[in-house]
Amino acid sequence: MPDYVTDAADPRLTDYTRLRDVDLRKSLEAERGLFVAEGEKVIRRAIAAGYPIRSVLTTPRWLEPLADVLGDATVYVVSDETMLGVAGFQVHRGALASMERLPLPPVEEVLAGTSRVVVLEDLVDHSNVGAIFRCAAALGVEGIVLSPRCADPLYRRSVKVSMGAVFSIPYGRMDDWYGGLERIRTAGYTLLALTPDQRVTPIDKVKMGERAALLLGSEGDGLSSRWMREADESVCIPMSPAAMAAGVDSLNVVAAAAIACHSLTRVDGA
Amino acid sequence: MPDYVTDAADPRLTDYTRLRDVDLRKSLEAERGLFVAEGEKVIRRAIAAGYPIRSVLTTPRWLEPLADVLGDATVYVVSDETMLGVAGFQVHRGALASMERLPLPPVEEVLAGTSRVVVLEDLVDHSNVGAIFRCAAALGVEGIVLSPRCADPLYRRSVKVSMGAVFSIPYGRMDDWYGGLERIRTAGYTLLALTPDQRVTPIDKVKMGERAALLLGSEGDGLSSRWMREADESVCIPMSPAAMAAGVDSLNVVAAAAIACHSLTRVDGA
Ligand SMILES: C[S@@+](CC[C@H](N)C(=O)[O-])C[C@H]1O[C@@H](n2cnc3c(N)ncnc32)[C@H](O)[C@@H]1O
Ligand SMILES: C[S@@+](CC[C@H](N)C(=O)[O-])C[C@H]1O[C@@H](n2cnc3c(N)ncnc32)[C@H](O)[C@@H]1O
Repeated sequence: MPDYVTDAADPRLTDYTRLRDVDLRKSLEAERGLFVAEGEKVIRRAIAAGYPIRSVLTTPRWLEPLADVLGDATVYVVSDETMLGVAGFQVHRGALASMERLPLPPVEEVLAGTSRVVVLEDLVDHSNVGAIFRCAAALGVEGIVLSPRCADPLYRRSVKVSMGAVFSIPYGRMDDWYGGLERIRTAGYTLLALTPDQRVTPIDKVKMGERAALLLGSEGDGLSSRWMREADESVCIPMSPAAMAAGVDSLNVVAAAAIACHSLTRVDGA
Repeated sequence: MPDYVTDAADPRLTDYTRLRDVDLRKSLEAERGLFVAEGEKVIRRAIAAGYPIRSVLTTPRWLEPLADVLGDATVYVVSDETMLGVAGFQVHRGALASMERLPLPPVEEVLAGTSRVVVLEDLVDHSNVGAIFRCAAALGVEGIVLSPRCADPLYRRSVKVSMGAVFSIPYGRMDDWYGGLERIRTAGYTLLALTPDQRVTPIDKVKMGERAALLLGSEGDGLSSRWMREADESVCIPMSPAAMAAGVDSLNVVAAAAIACHSLTRVDGA
């Protein structure tokens, strides 16, 4: 039986407090080991992926459509107004679920049995991380490795932008930025550093080996000089000299990831 | 000589009012034929692209770095606090410029002398439009045609995400959605409709002809059935069957645009 709650300040709803406040949410979610899934589709995928439900918060409208997957989960039902009071903004497709995080697998486990992976260095933007998960999954990349400082794929915005791909593609997080790449190489991977530098090997000329890892850097800084040095080969996506002269001197990391993953996973090879 | 202004409600500053309010800005900018450029780099590019300056609003810190390009433009100098009061949020790199729009060239003029263009149908998201401009420009696409309902490339958010590419790549807007594609074909273009439908020709198998136009649709609906029918060929980027089964059944339009533009402009052909 769902519980009807009328007070936005009810302590049972604190998992859902102020969803837009990134800093508050980060500490809250880390502390309690939870994350919030938003909307019917995403909630279904999170449940299907095996994440345990802590509770569900929904307006009456979404109770019925979700009924078949909720089992005996704790469900709080609130009015649109109370929902707004708790979350701090109008939640589209009014259902939220607080889910328990699962321990991330060690990087070696993510890599076991794969041959095409993506490695992200210090991407702090949740939308970019989510978008890269979506496109890597869609293009058949088999795993993603994050540097220690990358944004959380289970943060609400990442999950949403990924279209739920954070639940379908295995990923792990290095516990050591400095030595992290070496462990990927030890797992048999050739490390390809993606850089806008047009003097390096163009991506369509790269022979993707048995096991290839694409390294991508952040919007501002790109890949660190350490990772650039550690990589087996530097690779670029050719850009228009005219555009570069006009100041458009790199691709957004999601666009670069899309092109590189497409090259990486093409059936006919490079 | 710059004018020092202390009152956020000063009528001379109304071009810059409430920059985050999309609806207000849309009507204000359309009515007055202006757009707002944000930050030193973007302001420089807008000026270099020939847009006339209506006025500049800056904190004292950015007066000097911009001095060389401002000529005898009207410049208002305000404190950080007044800036916040006017714009409605903390403007990073505190300078804004109100610029006059120029009449958009007719579509035929955008197409003259080009051989690789992108056509967007009803993309209403400013970030997606900006991101596609950036990646099309970087990859050497020569022009962009927008359907009547596409988001405004000169809206602040589009300009920012495009990294100024909206000033370097020529673009135009169809005045007629229904007959718009026919005019592109008449200009000698082969129309390629990009769709996630995996039964159509994979992009790496397409022979890009003399003049090729890539048609891209919106996040929710994709390309309309009219445009799909009007196109000369339907083209897909192959996706992983496993990901599709898990519900990741299309690429974000920016990722799709990146891969397609890369194929379109590869020096070695498809
Ligand atoms: C916006 S770029 C970083 C720009 C940074 N100023 C630099 O020079 O590396 C973000 C990431 O996207 C990838 N990237 C962007 N443009 C690329 C290109 N043309 N070829 C290969 N990778 C690219 C790289 O991995 C880069 O670290
Ligand atoms: C998110 S998709 C639209 C999804 C929509 N439900 C559909 O079925 O078309 C947005 C646009 O990106 C392009 N797109 C996305 N995935 C694609 C793929 N795998 N191959 C080709 N184009 C794709 C298409 O132009 C599409 O209209």
